[in-house]
Amino acid sequence: MTCDPTDRVQDLLNKVNDPKHRTKKIFVEMDILKKRFEDYEWKEIARWVKYEENVEEGGKRWSKPHVASLSMHSIVELRRFIQDSCMLLDIECYTISQVIDSFLDAWVTDGQLDPLLRQHVRNMCLKTHRHSHDKGRKGRLSRQNTNTDLTRGFSSSSDAGHDSSASLSSMDTEALKKHNEKFMRKIPKGAEVCNVMVGEIDDLEQRVCGFMRLNDSRVLGDICEVPLPTRFVFILLGPIGTADHLQEIGRVVGTMMVDDIFREVAYKCRDKEDLFAGMDEFIEQVTVLPPGEWDPKIRIEPPGSVPSQVMINPLGAITNVPRPPPEEEQESHADPSLVLSGRPFKGLIEDIKRKAPWYVSDFKDALHIQCVASFIYIFLATLTPNVTFGGMLGQETNQYMGVMECIFAAAVTGIIFALFSGQPMNILGSTGPMLVLEKIIYNFCVDQGWDFMPFRCWVGIWTGGLLLIIVMFDLSALVKYITRFTEESFACLIALIFIYEAFLKLFNIATIDAPVQLHPDEPIPMNCMCNSSMYISNITDHWNQTMCMDMNATWNCIPEMTYIPDAFMFSVLLYFGTFGIAIFLIDFKTWSCFPTWVRQLLSDFGVLIAIVSMVGVDIACGLPTPKLLVPEEFKPTRSDRGWFINPLSATNPWWTALAAGLPAILATILVFMDQQITAVIVNRKENKLKKGKGYHLDLMVLTILIVASSLLGLPWYVAATVSAIAHVQSLKKESESTAPGEKPTFLGVREQRVTALLVGILSGAAVFITNVLKVIPMPVLYGVFFYMGFSALRGMQFIDRILLFLMPVKYQPDHKYLRHVPLWRVHVFTLIQTTCLIALWVVKSIKVISIGFPLLVVFTGVVRKIMECFFSQYELKYLDDILPGKDKKSGDKVYF
Amino acid sequence: MTCDPTDRVQDLLNKVNDPKHRTKKIFVEMDILKKRFEDYEWKEIARWVKYEENVEEGGKRWSKPHVASLSMHSIVELRRFIQDSCMLLDIECYTISQVIDSFLDAWVTDGQLDPLLRQHVRNMCLKTHRHSHDKGRKGRLSRQNTNTDLTRGFSSSSDAGHDSSASLSSMDTEALKKHNEKFMRKIPKGAEVCNVMVGEIDDLEQRVCGFMRLNDSRVLGDICEVPLPTRFVFILLGPIGTADHLQEIGRVVGTMMVDDIFREVAYKCRDKEDLFAGMDEFIEQVTVLPPGEWDPKIRIEPPGSVPSQVMINPLGAITNVPRPPPEEEQESHADPSLVLSGRPFKGLIEDIKRKAPWYVSDFKDALHIQCVASFIYIFLATLTPNVTFGGMLGQETNQYMGVMECIFAAAVTGIIFALFSGQPMNILGSTGPMLVLEKIIYNFCVDQGWDFMPFRCWVGIWTGGLLLIIVMFDLSALVKYITRFTEESFACLIALIFIYEAFLKLFNIATIDAPVQLHPDEPIPMNCMCNSSMYISNITDHWNQTMCMDMNATWNCIPEMTYIPDAFMFSVLLYFGTFGIAIFLIDFKTWSCFPTWVRQLLSDFGVLIAIVSMVGVDIACGLPTPKLLVPEEFKPTRSDRGWFINPLSATNPWWTALAAGLPAILATILVFMDQQITAVIVNRKENKLKKGKGYHLDLMVLTILIVASSLLGLPWYVAATVSAIAHVQSLKKESESTAPGEKPTFLGVREQRVTALLVGILSGAAVFITNVLKVIPMPVLYGVFFYMGFSALRGMQFIDRILLFLMPVKYQPDHKYLRHVPLWRVHVFTLIQTTCLIALWVVKSIKVISIGFPLLVVFTGVVRKIMECFFSQYELKYLDDILPGKDKKSGDKVYF
Repeated sequence: MTCDPTDRVQDLLNKVNDPKHRTKKIFVEMDILKKRFEDYEWKEIARWVKYEENVEEGGKRWSKPHVASLSMHSIVELRRFIQDSCMLLDIECYTISQVIDSFLDAWVTDGQLDPLLRQHVRNMCLKTHRHSHDKGRKGRLSRQNTNTDLTRGFSSSSDAGHDSSASLSSMDTEALKKHNEKFMRKIPKGAEVCNVMVGEIDDLEQRVCGFMRLNDSRVLGDICEVPLPTRFVFILLGPIGTADHLQEIGRVVGTMMVDDIFREVAYKCRDKEDLFAGMDEFIEQVTVLPPGEWDPKIRIEPPGSVPSQVMINPLGAITNVPRPPPEEEQESHADPSLVLSGRPFKGLIEDIKRKAPWYVSDFKDALHIQCVASFIYIFLATLTPNVTFGGMLGQETNQYMGVMECIFAAAVTGIIFALFSGQPMNILGSTGPMLVLEKIIYNFCVDQGWDFMPFRCWVGIWTGGLLLIIVMFDLSALVKYITRFTEESFACLIALIFIYEAFLKLFNIATIDAPVQLHPDEPIPMNCMCNSSMYISNITDHWNQTMCMDMNATWNCIPEMTYIPDAFMFSVLLYFGTFGIAIFLIDFKTWSCFPTWVRQLLSDFGVLIAIVSMVGVDIACGLPTPKLLVPEEFKPTRSDRGWFINPLSATNPWWTALAAGLPAILATILVFMDQQITAVIVNRKENKLKKGKGYHLDLMVLTILIVASSLLGLPWYVAATVSAIAHVQSLKKESESTAPGEKPTFLGVREQRVTALLVGILSGAAVFITNVLKVIPMPVLYGVFFYMGFSALRGMQFIDRILLFLMPVKYQPDHKYLRHVPLWRVHVFTLIQTTCLIALWVVKSIKVISIGFPLLVVFTGVVRKIMECFFSQYELKYLDDILPGKDKKSGDKVYF
Repeated sequence: MTCDPTDRVQDLLNKVNDPKHRTKKIFVEMDILKKRFEDYEWKEIARWVKYEENVEEGGKRWSKPHVASLSMHSIVELRRFIQDSCMLLDIECYTISQVIDSFLDAWVTDGQLDPLLRQHVRNMCLKTHRHSHDKGRKGRLSRQNTNTDLTRGFSSSSDAGHDSSASLSSMDTEALKKHNEKFMRKIPKGAEVCNVMVGEIDDLEQRVCGFMRLNDSRVLGDICEVPLPTRFVFILLGPIGTADHLQEIGRVVGTMMVDDIFREVAYKCRDKEDLFAGMDEFIEQVTVLPPGEWDPKIRIEPPGSVPSQVMINPLGAITNVPRPPPEEEQESHADPSLVLSGRPFKGLIEDIKRKAPWYVSDFKDALHIQCVASFIYIFLATLTPNVTFGGMLGQETNQYMGVMECIFAAAVTGIIFALFSGQPMNILGSTGPMLVLEKIIYNFCVDQGWDFMPFRCWVGIWTGGLLLIIVMFDLSALVKYITRFTEESFACLIALIFIYEAFLKLFNIATIDAPVQLHPDEPIPMNCMCNSSMYISNITDHWNQTMCMDMNATWNCIPEMTYIPDAFMFSVLLYFGTFGIAIFLIDFKTWSCFPTWVRQLLSDFGVLIAIVSMVGVDIACGLPTPKLLVPEEFKPTRSDRGWFINPLSATNPWWTALAAGLPAILATILVFMDQQITAVIVNRKENKLKKGKGYHLDLMVLTILIVASSLLGLPWYVAATVSAIAHVQSLKKESESTAPGEKPTFLGVREQRVTALLVGILSGAAVFITNVLKVIPMPVLYGVFFYMGFSALRGMQFIDRILLFLMPVKYQPDHKYLRHVPLWRVHVFTLIQTTCLIALWVVKSIKVISIGFPLLVVFTGVVRKIMECFFSQYELKYLDDILPGKDKKSGDKVYF
């Protein structure tokens, strides 16, 4: 076991390149010789596509695919066996009996097999094969076949003449037998078969072993459970009492044959030495688990991913397999679209060029049931904020813009953005700071005696202009300075606010929509009034009542509040019920009950099922829970405004059009930050989006939308973080597993424009389906918000790091950054991030300064930049991303 | 690698038995030579107690303990290195410098080391050692020490004289340094150290390698992180550029040294050949994972249990380690206490003999916080059924026996049973069939005009007599015919009824305790009355009202029902809240947040915390939820009966005393079945009870209790299945893990009499703490019932098998029986069991025939016996237990 085998293997793989020895995928089937009723048969007991599957001893069924854990002992034994085996390369055989005869000839010639035993061994080798998918029916068949076998065996004791009969017989068998077509799907196309046959034969005194590579792969009768041609046959026969032992060795052969490198060696080997080299190379590469620490009976679940085999041991690397690109974090923002090109609109043009080829597929890719679940979910999840935000906006602007305007805005922006944006996975919505801005503008107009709507229209036009400039100079390229640090702080904040507001709104039901009477045994606060011609009081104390009576007046009391029984408590039940069902169904995907497609469907429709079932419960109970109320008519909330705002209103002084530029700067910052951070979050590399980014195009579409909204008197909508995350999460797709045991991998997201488009259309159409919508209780929707916030938080590295504070070191999961960054520095990083989060929260929640929120988001980016002074690039590479302009290679070395 | 190494190792281990070479446990520490600031030092990077722990590259902290997965390549390399290493056995060394000098001498003598390099290598080898627990402080120290090293190195270029200075220096270091005392707890007592030192040294042209076993183990200065004596030193030095490679080889040494067999070889080996044999033996025993199927970078979690090393490969077994008893299901009922001895009271006497030695420990073992949590939980969990059952019993018996009698019975039986029973883990309670029996007896008495209590007293005395006969003839031995099949059907039914009743009682709140008004917008049903001198009606229709008015009468309407707002909905919240918190906290134990003791405490007190927090919520809201009401005075429910029932009542005819024998037979069957099945469930082998069983003693105590209860006029209490299961589950104990990475194993249950005793005492004292108890809302207790039923169901094999119906074959877990029994036969078995369960449920729920329930339980045993015709003993062994009288060994073979 020197370095020679490696060289030899490398040499072999490089040299032998003729088409005849082209390496194909291999399916291995292992059969053992077993007694059944009076006779023997070859029974399938294991198979390999990539991982091993066994037939359970008594269970008569396939085990779960698992990593084949072998014993070193068997490997060493196999090596010894091959040493004195006969090896037949590139033999022309048409039937299994030809194969067996070739082996027998070789064994007898070598003196390994007593010629007297030849016929007996031959008979045994030619027994029928029974596969695991053949059910009871096969019992009869196999007996019948065996009889033919036997007669044939006796009649053709000479070598000649048996070929035809054997091939006939095997043809018979084949005709009678059904191959396992179902399993064929799991085997890669063009695969060939390696048949491993091991068994103990009475009278045999010494084990015989043979390995054959056929010249042309052929379907050799019934020896394989699938109708694929056999290329390799490995036979190992031993005396009675060695069956278990031989079986272990057969497993080694099976496992090696599906190994990428050994398989290639097997296809190309010229002699036994080549095969040995391949085997030694295999042995060198194995992972070894010490006996005292591992129970070999444990079946190891296939890992999530297996490294390409070259990577395993750089000392003995084989070059033939192309070396994969070094596993390095691809900087998510380092793509060519994010450069300050200097040429006007270059970024925008590039974006259009990049997105245009995908445009048709953006519609075709939506043909999936998942999209249906997704769009209804997102529709309901965005409609509610539209309604509630509309209510608040109406209050702030004296109903100039109310619920109806928000619904209209959602429809218009939703449709246009879905059709033309660079990232249609993004969902537009209303945001808190925008509400504050509108309020400030409105109050200012009232103070100055200006008309609100025309002035606001000018602000919108100015904002559009400023955004146009940003697009022109490719300033969106600055988003590359937004790292995971900023992203996660921002997304985490928005998600937390979502959860907080879900609870707040739920508890508001107890005071606003359906007051609940706690402590009913205590006296109810009353509003009392003394009603007489001479005296009217409004005081509650008892003394007053007596006085009132004394004065011959009427003492009228009414409770301070009308309580609505049961409604609030029931709302709480609905809320947690919705959340619970949604979480349960989403996590249901990872359960092991039911077939995959059922679980996938339940998981995709989880939120919808939760909503529908809770709506059902609500209807059944008929309690007066607050419902989702949508205006029923399509007209502006205020009757004195139309659907078009004329900016050239006569009432405002002409220079107000210019003055509007000042608030427009603020609005521009707001729009830019909200929009682009959300876009960065949607585009992050974990989501594996394939259709490219479109920051410049997004902003261009938004510019047009903002100007349009201003002219129509609608609120300005920008990307809504939580809805966008929910949208992406609801459209995740996973690979269907190929080889048994291979884990499904996250493939990416169904990137298309249809769900967003339908959400937009349906948002507008909401006014026409108010009858349906008004059965939906608000607490159910709050439960959905809770769920959305919760699932946005899940899987955020920031949250993982916060949990580390609570975890004793020994329980901490094997996060990559923990292997590379000292724990206390991870903690410091988390603390800084938490501080940023708190600062953001404080600014966002204090109304007066909340307009400065976007600036603070920018500030977190600055904090991140400053942190470079305290953290090495090496550490930041693992905890965050590297900022542009830093040399990553050198970063690797800084710390050591 | 022939069979020889095995023989050689076996020979070695058997022959070398002198005390000097006695094998001890080993702790391995691996240090590598690393540059720090300007200088070098030995840095600890890995250690082994049983599993491997690494210092994370950048993380500077210990990784999770994991199975050391090695590369075969390194193992082969190590073997080659040892070939030309120097091996120094039983050397007398007092300091690390003596050790190093011995190695240097050997290397120079062998010609492996250039004498010119000797001083340089010596200096490097004597650099200070820095351990992972030394923090920044060490930086300075190590530099300071190194200086002394350097001066020493130059001054003592001859061999003489450096010993004292070196030992002095290492003493200094030791004084300055703190050992890792905290980690000492994890290392087995009496362990010795193996120090592995690997490093690359400049100028070295060829690797040198040495292995030393010290004559006496000694603490060699600072080379180890714990103050344990070093026995072995392995040094491997190589030229620059080989560090990673050498490190891998060091890991192999570390892993091998903690291997049970190799460790023994290392202690006993006489020469290099012995060591090779040990190594080859190790290699033969390893488990191998093929390169294409496994990523060696994945750290493998230590498995739940590792087989004794002899078991691994029977072909190359080593006999020295005592072979564990063959892993076979011990028949749970096959113990000597369960035989029909034929001698009267033999079983009882045996039981007393067996339990007596444990009696003191039955009290001492209760000194654990877990017992506090357990007894409060069980107290509350049994008090509620007492109260509700008491209420029902009172209704059935015209208050002859009511709530108070049940509480008294719980106290008396609880205390006596806890003090004297054979299985104090059992909890007595009231059962449904018993209620039916009392009802039948009462109605019969009423029909015949007999006095109920004296007649019932006679029934009790007869029952006592019959039970005494059962005890006398050891008939409890028949429980050995109760297999898992019957047990689980019974326990599952009782648990399901528990859950069902928990929900039923919850929903009863909505109709009985706190009616809820659903659909408040619909008209409320009214009871109306026409009140006039001539006409009184009670009809609700409108026409009537007009008629009534016409007749000048008053029309009075009152609602049919007084609704209590919010109480029911709030009860539902409390119910699910209690259940949710309890489940969450119990499962919290398996989380990775917080240190183990916190999680263990939260888990132990889970149910209590759930109750207390929900009681708090209830108090805070002050809604009129139904509360737990316990009588406040200690007196019989009916005032016309005393606490003693005179069976010789004058009112009943004398022959009624004889007639009572008939119902007594029924009562005996009831008592026997309920009591003994529960005892079987408590005693089942999964619970790992250590203090033996006491079926006969249990029944004897119960006999006395039943006679006493009859004389006191109390209901008859027998073992309550769900409470008993909850009791056992609340007292489970797990091992505190010893070697890092070893999984805590379930050790057994805190078997003691104190919790049951306290539950008994407190049950009686409940009448004095009614003020505390009446704050507890019933829905909270129903939530506890739900939890108890739910957790009794969890982990039942029957439930697992039912789930198999829903699971696609490929997701089915690796249950043992699935490996041995075909799936469809498992399904048939489950279906039969389900049928039995349904039959039991039907009988139990139809009042008229529910008295026959215990007979049906016996019948399930018959069904199980009949099943032997359809299922082989082999299959039944895996799915169930083998009935007595069947040869298990032959059972093994039946199927194949």
